[in-house]
Amino acid sequence: MPQPGAFPLNYNVAMANPRIGQHITFLAEADRLKNVLRRTLLTDSSRRENSAEHSWHLVLCAMVLAEYVAEPVDLLRVTRMLVVHDLVEIDAGDTFAYDASGNADKLERERAAAVRIFGLLPADVGGDLRALWEEFEAHSTPEARFAHAVDRVQPFLQNVKTRGGTWRLYGPTREQVLERMDPVRTMLPALWPLVSDYVEQFFARKAEPAPGLPSP
Amino acid sequence: MPQPGAFPLNYNVAMANPRIGQHITFLAEADRLKNVLRRTLLTDSSRRENSAEHSWHLVLCAMVLAEYVAEPVDLLRVTRMLVVHDLVEIDAGDTFAYDASGNADKLERERAAAVRIFGLLPADVGGDLRALWEEFEAHSTPEARFAHAVDRVQPFLQNVKTRGGTWRLYGPTREQVLERMDPVRTMLPALWPLVSDYVEQFFARKAEPAPGLPSP
Repeated sequence: MPQPGAFPLNYNVAMANPRIGQHITFLAEADRLKNVLRRTLLTDSSRRENSAEHSWHLVLCAMVLAEYVAEPVDLLRVTRMLVVHDLVEIDAGDTFAYDASGNADKLERERAAAVRIFGLLPADVGGDLRALWEEFEAHSTPEARFAHAVDRVQPFLQNVKTRGGTWRLYGPTREQVLERMDPVRTMLPALWPLVSDYVEQFFARKAEPAPGLPSP
Repeated sequence: MPQPGAFPLNYNVAMANPRIGQHITFLAEADRLKNVLRRTLLTDSSRRENSAEHSWHLVLCAMVLAEYVAEPVDLLRVTRMLVVHDLVEIDAGDTFAYDASGNADKLERERAAAVRIFGLLPADVGGDLRALWEEFEAHSTPEARFAHAVDRVQPFLQNVKTRGGTWRLYGPTREQVLERMDPVRTMLPALWPLVSDYVEQFFARKAEPAPGLPSP
């Protein structure tokens, strides 16, 4: 493994253009999103998913599922939004959907993170990406609503593949899960029967005694 | 942790639309890219990077660095290409850039993987994404060439942050590294002084005796 400090090369030396320096600083900082863990499991249950690989999976989902979207969307705008939507977690951490206390101050923590992280960029680019993050948080456009629907479908698939996944591990109620999944109903209605049927089956079976199984 | 098989819910039950079933199968299969490890280290040297989080980072790099690109590109096309460009590694594994024997049969292994993985999708969508992967491999368009430049810059940054990273760990020559980085020179010329200066410094210092350091 590399030994910190032993090769103290100065990579700023060639940057005659300070704007490039800001871009590079931001892109290197973004690497830290790979160490932010979500509650969602990988489909093989081997470990928790991180927010960087999650973001990649969302962009792939958006591209493949765009043909089902209920309102026309600008897919490049959706993609840009999904790529940056979790960057604030570098400072604020991932807040689990069903964690009431964590969600109480989530927006405040994430706003401060957005100021710092998008502030690493030149003002024009940073302002643009920060506005995209705010648009996502506000659910204010078809692009933001589609991005949220995709952000529900992907963890849903991970949960299906891990026999309920986070629903089994952390015990949200049926009503909480259906509310959480609602952007799928409104923005990807063709997928809603699949989602609602699985949720109903999961909670119906969860209520039954399951010999040999630890309590959910 | 979930116990495989204990909740055998059938998530196919609600899929009246078999096309959706193909989309869902592909998207769940894509999750496996998160377990494909590259040689590149995270910037904190804590572990190797996987190909899914790498792909996310490339899309972010493409969006931020598009203002420097030497030829006009369709950024949505670049993004779609980058998001799928490593999916073949689910079957074929990641082939290290400086591994001559691994690269000898790389294309053959990856072609077979492309047939299987993109073949999970409906023929129209799968054919479209497979063509994007082939375009990337062929370097045949400005979008493909920009995607390759971004695919060089991001590991370069990871190497800078880990004191040479894979160059220190695996020992490619200066000439191999410069050849590998050449898409940056042609497609992101504004970044080339930064890259070439760092490479020259790295190989100049590597040749010096470094007391207390293991050989590179």
